[in-house]
Amino acid sequence: RKRILITGGAGFVGSHLTDKLMMDGHEVTVVDNFFTGRKRNVEHWIGHENFELINHDVVEPLYIEVDQIYHLASPASPPNYMYNPIKTLKTNTIGTLNMLGELKSLFFRLTSFKCFLSIDPEVHPQNEDYWGHVNPIGPRACYDEGKRVAETMCYAYMKQGVEVRVARYSYFGPRMHMNDGRVVSNFILQALQGEPLTVYGPGTQTRAFQYVSDLVNGLVALMNSNVSSPVNLGNPEEHSILEFAQLIKKLVGSGSEIQFLTEAQDDPQKRRPDIKKAKLLLGWEPVVPLEEGLNKAIHYFRKELEYQA
Amino acid sequence: RKRILITGGAGFVGSHLTDKLMMDGHEVTVVDNFFTGRKRNVEHWIGHENFELINHDVVEPLYIEVDQIYHLASPASPPNYMYNPIKTLKTNTIGTLNMLGELKSLFFRLTSFKCFLSIDPEVHPQNEDYWGHVNPIGPRACYDEGKRVAETMCYAYMKQGVEVRVARYSYFGPRMHMNDGRVVSNFILQALQGEPLTVYGPGTQTRAFQYVSDLVNGLVALMNSNVSSPVNLGNPEEHSILEFAQLIKKLVGSGSEIQFLTEAQDDPQKRRPDIKKAKLLLGWEPVVPLEEGLNKAIHYFRKELEYQA
Ligand SMILES: NC(=O)c1ccc[n+]([C@@H]2O[C@H](COP(=O)([O-])OP(=O)(O)OC[C@H]3O[C@@H](n4cnc5c(N)ncnc54)[C@H](O)[C@@H]3O)[C@@H](O)[C@H]2O)c1
Ligand SMILES: NC(=O)c1ccc[n+]([C@@H]2O[C@H](COP(=O)([O-])OP(=O)(O)OC[C@H]3O[C@@H](n4cnc5c(N)ncnc54)[C@H](O)[C@@H]3O)[C@@H](O)[C@H]2O)c1
Ligand SMILES: O=c1ccn([C@@H]2O[C@H](COP(=O)(O)OP(=O)(O)O)[C@@H](O)[C@H]2O)c(=O)[nH]1
Ligand SMILES: O=c1ccn([C@@H]2O[C@H](COP(=O)(O)OP(=O)(O)O)[C@@H](O)[C@H]2O)c(=O)[nH]1
Ligand SMILES: O=c1ccn([C@@H]2O[C@H](COP(=O)(O)OP(=O)(O)O)[C@@H](O)[C@H]2O)c(=O)[nH]1
Ligand SMILES: O=c1ccn([C@@H]2O[C@H](COP(=O)(O)OP(=O)(O)O)[C@@H](O)[C@H]2O)c(=O)[nH]1
Repeated sequence: RKRILITGGAGFVGSHLTDKLMMDGHEVTVVDNFFTGRKRNVEHWIGHENFELINHDVVEPLYIEVDQIYHLASPASPPNYMYNPIKTLKTNTIGTLNMLGELKSLFFRLTSFKCFLSIDPEVHPQNEDYWGHVNPIGPRACYDEGKRVAETMCYAYMKQGVEVRVARYSYFGPRMHMNDGRVVSNFILQALQGEPLTVYGPGTQTRAFQYVSDLVNGLVALMNSNVSSPVNLGNPEEHSILEFAQLIKKLVGSGSEIQFLTEAQDDPQKRRPDIKKAKLLLGWEPVVPLEEGLNKAIHYFRKELEYQA
Repeated sequence: RKRILITGGAGFVGSHLTDKLMMDGHEVTVVDNFFTGRKRNVEHWIGHENFELINHDVVEPLYIEVDQIYHLASPASPPNYMYNPIKTLKTNTIGTLNMLGELKSLFFRLTSFKCFLSIDPEVHPQNEDYWGHVNPIGPRACYDEGKRVAETMCYAYMKQGVEVRVARYSYFGPRMHMNDGRVVSNFILQALQGEPLTVYGPGTQTRAFQYVSDLVNGLVALMNSNVSSPVNLGNPEEHSILEFAQLIKKLVGSGSEIQFLTEAQDDPQKRRPDIKKAKLLLGWEPVVPLEEGLNKAIHYFRKELEYQA
């Protein structure tokens, strides 16, 4: 039984991780400023003796005794992280330094999370040695560069004795944000509302989609492993965006049309994580079939739409 | 006449910039924690009514009224910035946020400085659109990623009304660090001390060298321009490292041998800044001939060696 802090624990991934760690019998403290997270995501634990929820911004120091920190606090989708770029930068730089400083003299474990770095079309699939290719002064730089330097900070503290785990990933599932503008949420919402599914370009570009429970299991396996270098956690099963649109239409039972719009700028034509390292060192691999994961996400979105109405 | 703050003003570039701005009649405040800088570099101004020297670390907030900030505080050479990677990261992230926060509600000007991003051998010469290619978790990441995110921070604050200038550059000259392990200081010291000049590999790789006074003039021109996007300041005249070794030997009048050692790892074979933008928009270009600059650096190193003896 461990004392575990989850920053950003009222968010999409953080709340699923809270569920798993609470079920496993740990003491869980969630720290969140509710910028993109919601109390609703964790309210089923409020009142449980092993659970604590603290309304706190990670840009301010926090003094708390724990054994492990899952550091997830950061807006994640482009509309959210571009809303206040300075805040996004502070959350990822000062926020990460605060969490790492917390652990300085201790021998605790920290998992910092970042997305796959933006993708170089010539590197496919991407393994962990890939350095990324991002514009340091573009509109998404507050997130991309903030996440890169957060990773650098983790490794600088590791040399001082802090145990670090770094995962790189992407995922979908219930409690994902409905209006983040990315493909999974767009297509499900469109299918549920009878609107056309908007495919950018011919739809031949491919992506690979990981269900959130697979990710959460991978994060916990990584945290409790001895692997301190970055590890990709993802589902390597690749689909074209058109196939994906057709699948969602079918699962929803929707009469929506598929609409072909102009191609997005600099859109990577293929994207798939290389997860050999996670398989080998963590004995982990994703197990949830795409249809099953999508059905759960669709169910969640349906309820949310009813709730909003 | 302006009130100008120079962070890192007791360092190599900062002290030359102090000299120029003092000569031009401005009020200059130097802020430095003397980590790599020295009081000696600016002591000729101490007591002057327009000059103030504050021993302060930029990682802590600073409250001061100024019209312009040249934000140079950061260790610059690999041995210095790798000495304490966490401190390097804090200086470049929290230090930069502190300086930018200072200016938030005002309409002042900030120049943030960063090196050329590490160089992709396929992009030559490098213009300002080049995104860089750096390892986010290597030993140099504390500097490279710190500088990248500092630039991102500048542009995030620019959207809030802070005037930003960003220069990318490299340079040599008097007051440079004698033991930073890079080519100019190595060769001059070796030639002066009668030791072999250590050429890594066959010496056919090229570099371009800018004298510090050209850089300082470029920085001032940039600060007082309306150009808010990054600008390269450099000298595009390219020399092979072997030519460069021979030139230094000749200028020193040294009997040192030239010794060929094994090639450095991942050593870029060519490096030259593209300065079209600075020429066009600032009307600036370097004017100091390489031999003249080198003679001044050699003179400085000779005096330093005498001083140390
Ligand atoms: N969604 C993705 O595609 C994706 C991909 C890779 C990595 N990530 C990363 O995974 C983590 C979790 O993302 P998510 O999808 O659960 O997003 P989310 O927005 O649902 O969760 C982030 C949580 O952090 C909280 N938060 C934000 N700033 C904070 C601050 N300053 N102090 C305290 N709490 C703060 C938010 O309120 C929210 O609860 C993030 O670090 C994100 O960058 C997301
Ligand atoms: N030398 C190069 O090749 C090179 C190339 C490109 C850019 N730069 C950048 O130019 C700037 C000046 O470099 P330089 O060559 O004059 O190096 P330098 O080491 O001589 O100067 C840096 C100065 O900053 C001061 N400083 C460092 N950390 C500080 C902190 N936390 N608070 C206050 N002061 C602090 C140091 O004491 C020193 O006086 C740096 O930002 C550097 O990264 C250097
Ligand atoms: O409504 C949408 C949203 C996205 N996409 C495409 O789906 C893929 C994944 O886009 P997303 O923004 O979800 O993620 P990323 O490009 O970061 O993988 C890209 O090829 C997009 O062009 C699409 O066709 N329609
Ligand atoms: O299981 C996975 C995990 C990630 N990715 C890809 O990695 C991208 C996330 O990378 P990005 O840098 O764009 O992060 P984001 O902006 O989506 O947070 C996703 O969109 C996916 O296309 C993937 O294909 N399969
Ligand atoms: O003692 C030295 C130091 C450097 N170099 C070479 O000189 C060039 C410039 O190296 P430096 O470290 O000064 O700067 P870089 O441009 O590589 O960042 C590189 O090709 C080095 O291999 C050399 O031959 N001898
Ligand atoms: O006038 C210039 C200015 C810079 N550079 C190159 O840019 C490098 C600096 O880039 P780097 O990212 O290595 O920065 P550093 O580590 O030297 O601060 C120098 O070594 C030079 O080779 C150049 O060739 N000419």
